[in-house]
Order: sequence, then structure tokens, then C-alpha cells
Amino acid sequence: MTFAQSLSDAARLTEATLAHLLAEKTLMGEAPEAQAGRLIAAMRHAVLGGGKRVRPLLVIESAALFGVTAVQAAATAAALELVHCYSLAHDDLPAMDNDELRRGQPTVWKAYDEWTAILAGDGLLTLAFDLLARPETHPDADVRVALVGALARASGAAGMVGGQALDLMADKLGDPERPTIEHIRQLQAMKTGALLVFACEAGAILGRASDVERRALVDFGAALGFAFQIADDLLDAEGDVATVGKAVAKDAAANKATLVSLMGIAEAKAMLARTEAAANDALALFGAKADVLREAARFVVNRKS
Amino acid sequence: MTFAQSLSDAARLTEATLAHLLAEKTLMGEAPEAQAGRLIAAMRHAVLGGGKRVRPLLVIESAALFGVTAVQAAATAAALELVHCYSLAHDDLPAMDNDELRRGQPTVWKAYDEWTAILAGDGLLTLAFDLLARPETHPDADVRVALVGALARASGAAGMVGGQALDLMADKLGDPERPTIEHIRQLQAMKTGALLVFACEAGAILGRASDVERRALVDFGAALGFAFQIADDLLDAEGDVATVGKAVAKDAAANKATLVSLMGIAEAKAMLARTEAAANDALALFGAKADVLREAARFVVNRKS
Repeated sequence: MTFAQSLSDAARLTEATLAHLLAEKTLMGEAPEAQAGRLIAAMRHAVLGGGKRVRPLLVIESAALFGVTAVQAAATAAALELVHCYSLAHDDLPAMDNDELRRGQPTVWKAYDEWTAILAGDGLLTLAFDLLARPETHPDADVRVALVGALARASGAAGMVGGQALDLMADKLGDPERPTIEHIRQLQAMKTGALLVFACEAGAILGRASDVERRALVDFGAALGFAFQIADDLLDAEGDVATVGKAVAKDAAANKATLVSLMGIAEAKAMLARTEAAANDALALFGAKADVLREAARFVVNRKS
Repeated sequence: MTFAQSLSDAARLTEATLAHLLAEKTLMGEAPEAQAGRLIAAMRHAVLGGGKRVRPLLVIESAALFGVTAVQAAATAAALELVHCYSLAHDDLPAMDNDELRRGQPTVWKAYDEWTAILAGDGLLTLAFDLLARPETHPDADVRVALVGALARASGAAGMVGGQALDLMADKLGDPERPTIEHIRQLQAMKTGALLVFACEAGAILGRASDVERRALVDFGAALGFAFQIADDLLDAEGDVATVGKAVAKDAAANKATLVSLMGIAEAKAMLARTEAAANDALALFGAKADVLREAARFVVNRKS
């Protein structure tokens, strides 16, 4: 199976899981369905019909290292994607990044309005934990609660939300001094890295991996997250809006310090290559079983959108 | 011990738990503390130094029915209060209810700004699930994951978030027809009732109560929630801003359909008395052990702020 097939299979499974989860009947139970239709439609807009589903692929492939099937990992993969999509719905708000375009579509607040986008994001974040707590996620309660704790830590004030706060503080309030590469790296490790680390760690949790195996997947996830961010900055510096599917050259226009602006494009590309090598090194103990994860690193490094 | 003492003890224990939880060191771990200080300060502003802590009291007193101590229930009580406070931080936003005053203090967005208030709310919601997943909440993983699931369902699209969406749809987009008492009752059961039900149910979950006991506490919580809402509408119609600590007469000014506007003040007060009686009936099987919960219902019915 090629990597493109693996990604497409993971995306299809995740999409089906999410579509079922976000169907009105599933979501609302006995609550008055039609009336909250605007909220549900906005939640569906935020989640369905787009996205490469890289995080779900990482969950599924990390879990596969321990004999956990894709179907058994699907709920966890979907929960993670819900958190990712909620964060986009909130980050795109006028009060935050003020983005109108996402995956070539209007962002949630643009398609609906601000209050609907705020509530849709809140609903998706909450749904992620609802889903992780269900027996369909894993038969053992201790595994489910470990997933809840790990996802909450990755996405909270010491993780994604804290990283976004640091980023917006610099954007909105101005940096007291020019940030260092190390500061931006730490910020990005929180803002985008923590969820990618969780994606890989989740497979270890689902598979009851040893501490050494779990640590290896955390290291892989951290390297992948850093690579992801360098690649993202390079896309913003070099990509075009039609391919990327969202606004580009925003960083330069805002005179924003990024890894690329601080290092230059050539050095950023060299660091990207070194980071991919580090990601591969972390996977050594898994041998050929981890080839799809290696290809995922390659994909992140080479992505054009 | 008087009810005022029970409430004050529960509030103090909850406040201490929350203050520890929201200390920079506890919250951020190895993350760069000082830099995300604005986020943490906003989270603390949203949670600490105010609030009657009625929900934590309900958790603690419901758990006490089954021999669970206040200290053993404190983490669950704090997690619920985090969700309550996040919802206020988001609901007060200009795009939502546009409130500048809460508990006599500036709301989070007013004290900081909109993006900080959005992220602080996101961080608090996430922290609630992080906390519930920790062993300090309960030694047994199946209890912790049951709490996660119940809180997520109560606060998600079929609960609090869905209720707020229904409320804002009526406010912002206009009602296609004048809403019925039943519609408003359902909306409020989602918007405010679901968390109060969870508060009471959480005690049953922590105490591994029987299905009959758990059902009784759910019924009590539902009646309490309805009473809470009628009392809230009456306060808006009859209270003054200095006592209530937030804007009043907003509903009438907005020509908003409420239980009071549809029933009239006299009938609303009669229904409030009947609802308090129903709340007490639900507690019959617990005998005198549930007296503090009965007084909590009394408190909700008689509150002046």
C-alpha cells in the first residue's frame, strides 16, 4: 500500500466516524433537534468535508505498531480531529487571527457568525472528551481516562491554548524584544506540536506500549511537530494561495518573526531536513513496522498545502 | 451546622482547590510560565474571587449522602466550577451576551480583551477534563471516566452549549413565533439545568450509588435547575443592579420571552414554590441525610443575587 493510500484510508475512516458522530440524531439524542440546527451545521462545517486528516493517520499508524486495528483506533483519531477543528474555528475568529478562508472554504464565523463559531468550537472540544469517555473508544476505563488526561494536557494552557496565547500576545501586544529561535520553537511546540505528540502517544496508550516505546513515539511526534512548523512557515513564505487553500505571506506582511524570517529560507530548509532525520531516528526500535510513520514525516516535510 | 456555614465551607474548599490548580507553577509545569502570564491571569480572573459556589456545594452534599468526604469530592466540584466559569467567560463576550459586569467585577473580555477571554475559556474547559482524569479525583479509573462522560454530555451540544445556542438564536435571529413556556423550559434545562443535574449526579457517581439513588439525585437536580431559572428571571424582573451584581431588567428591555414574561410574576412565584416541593419530593428516600440539599433548594428559591 502506498502512503497516499494509507492517508486516504485513514481520512475516509475518520470522516465516516466524524459524520456519524455529528449527525443530529447521534449528537442531540432527545434534545430538540431542529432548533439547534444552526449549531450542529456549524460544527459539521468546522469538521467535515476537508482537511488532510494527518493527525488521525498518526493515531492509527502509531496504534498499528502494537496490533491495534484502524477501526479500534478510529474513535481516538476522531476525538483528536475534533480538538484540532475546534481550535481552527476559534483561531480564525476576528478577535483572534481574523481569517476568512480555510481549506478553500469560508471559515466558520464567516459562513455563520461569531457567536455560532465560538459555540461550535466549544461544542466540538466538549464532544472530544465525551467521545473519549465512551466504551467504543477502548473497552478499558484506565486506557480511556489516560487518553482524556493526555489530550487535555496537550490542548490546554500548557499546550495548544497556551501556545496560541503566546502567539497572539506577540501579534496583538507586540514583542518587548525580537523573539529568539528558541522562543518561537517553544511557542510552536505548544501551539501545534503538542497535538501532534498526542497523536503519536495515543497509539502507545491504546496499545499499552512499554515506557520506552511510548517515549520513542513522543520523540517522533515532537520532531514531526517541529518539521510541520518549519514547513508551514516555508509555505507561508513561498506558497501561493490557490495551492495552500488559505491566505499566504501573512507573516511577512505582518512583519512577524517566524523560524524562516529569523533563519532565512536556506537554513530553514536545512533544519527541516535535520528534523526529518531526527524523526526517523526516533522510530529505530520499531524497524520496518514504522515505515508508514516515516512516510508521514516525509509527507509533512514535502507538503505543498 | 447552618446552611450558610455549609455553603461557606464548600466555597472555601473549592476556592482553595481552584487557587492551587490555577497557580502558574501547577498549571504550566515546564512550559514558560511568565510568558503566558496574561492567559493565566485571565483564567484566574474568570474563576477566583467570587461566585457563590452553589454547584460545588451540590457535588459535595450529594457525595456526602454516600459517605464520600468533602475533600474526596473537591476535585470533581472544582472541575464543574471550571466549566461553569468558562461558560460565563464566553457568554459575556461582545459577540454573545455582551456583558461588561459579572459578580460586581468587569467580565473577562472587559478586563483583558476578546481573544484572551476566548482562550481563557477554552483553557478552563480543557482543564476541567484534565482534572477529572487525574487520580486525585477518584482512585478508580471507571469512576473518573464516568465523570468525564457525564460532564461532557451535560456541557456539550445536547446540554449547556446547545441551550446557549437556542437562546442566542432567539436573541440574535428572532423567533419565528412567540416561544411557548415548554420551549423556554427545555432551553433552560439545557442551558443551565444540565450542569446542575450533573452537580447532583456527580455525587452519585463518586459514591457508586444505586440506579434508584442516582435517578433521585438527577430528578432533584432537574427540579433545582428549573427553580434556579424561574428565580433568575424573577431577579431580572424585580432585582436591582447593586444587589444582583450584574445588569438587570435586560430581558424586558430586549422584549425577551422569559418564564416570567409569559406567566406573569404571580404565577411564576407559584410555579417556583411547586418546583421547590418537587425538588424536596425527589429527596424522600434519603431522609434527614439530605437536609442540606433541601436547604440548597430553599436557598436557590430565595436568593437575591
